[in-house]
Amino acid sequence: MEAMEAILGRRSIRKYSDKPVTDAELKRLLEAGMAAPSGHNRQPWHFVVVRDRATLLEIPKFHNYSKMLEQAALAIIVCGDSELDGGTGFWVQDCSAATQNILLAAKAIGLGAVWLGVYPNENLVKGVKGLLHIPDKIQPLCIISIGHPMEEKPPANRYIQDRIHAGSW
Amino acid sequence: MEAMEAILGRRSIRKYSDKPVTDAELKRLLEAGMAAPSGHNRQPWHFVVVRDRATLLEIPKFHNYSKMLEQAALAIIVCGDSELDGGTGFWVQDCSAATQNILLAAKAIGLGAVWLGVYPNENLVKGVKGLLHIPDKIQPLCIISIGHPMEEKPPANRYIQDRIHAGSW
Repeated sequence: MEAMEAILGRRSIRKYSDKPVTDAELKRLLEAGMAAPSGHNRQPWHFVVVRDRATLLEIPKFHNYSKMLEQAALAIIVCGDSELDGGTGFWVQDCSAATQNILLAAKAIGLGAVWLGVYPNENLVKGVKGLLHIPDKIQPLCIISIGHPMEEKPPANRYIQDRIHAGSW
Repeated sequence: MEAMEAILGRRSIRKYSDKPVTDAELKRLLEAGMAAPSGHNRQPWHFVVVRDRATLLEIPKFHNYSKMLEQAALAIIVCGDSELDGGTGFWVQDCSAATQNILLAAKAIGLGAVWLGVYPNENLVKGVKGLLHIPDKIQPLCIISIGHPMEEKPPANRYIQDRIHAGSW
């Protein structure tokens, strides 16, 4: 798939078939995530991969927008390490760039995915940390739900001219 | 360009030729930015486009890592609106996804770009706000320096197996 097609055509996909995501496909997604830029190239990220159905079923009990995980082949929880980022506070941005790369890579290889926000919502952070035994110093930024798509969406046109400021604000 | 090639091959490009970036190319970049996902699809972003050389030359006076702007064809300052995001705090992630889309689109159409961190560094935020007359309620997240590349870099291999946690942490 062409890069611009992936970027402009990526949509949030919440319906999945029961076809598994292979380990090779998962590795491509994680390679894409770790290819993201980061502040001073510190790469302050970790990725928890959950395939276990019982674990996935726990998430909708505390996260209101995560019901699609009941059908997802897997979830990747993107986590940030504020020590690894040297206290700059850039880890949120770095991990978001990694997340976006994973979403685009999923689109590119024929998978469907959706970004579920966690951080900075304290209840969601606590829920994810408890479920996945994430250490205190690590923050779960988001959950990416992934599977083979069972819905098709046309590209969204979100272009808004008024959001562009030429020269200065 | 293939999507995976853009994702895995994107590098920070800091040396540019004096060839201009056209308005059509700029529009592709902004379309890519606004195609990003955002929390509850709130699209809490603005983009300030700076082509004026005198303005670009002001930035390295307060931002230590921005000297490449002296040669850049233009800069896009990606800004977040914490009112538009409904107070969820997701604007940093949303604007980071938009930034990553712009970097990948630049790679895809033959341009070179680099992400310069601004937020949450207070001095950098203040410097950018003052220079570009950005309103109080808007936060400049980052500066993207863009031009036609005058350096070539091979894909970076940043894959680290230890950052992947299977099942739980």
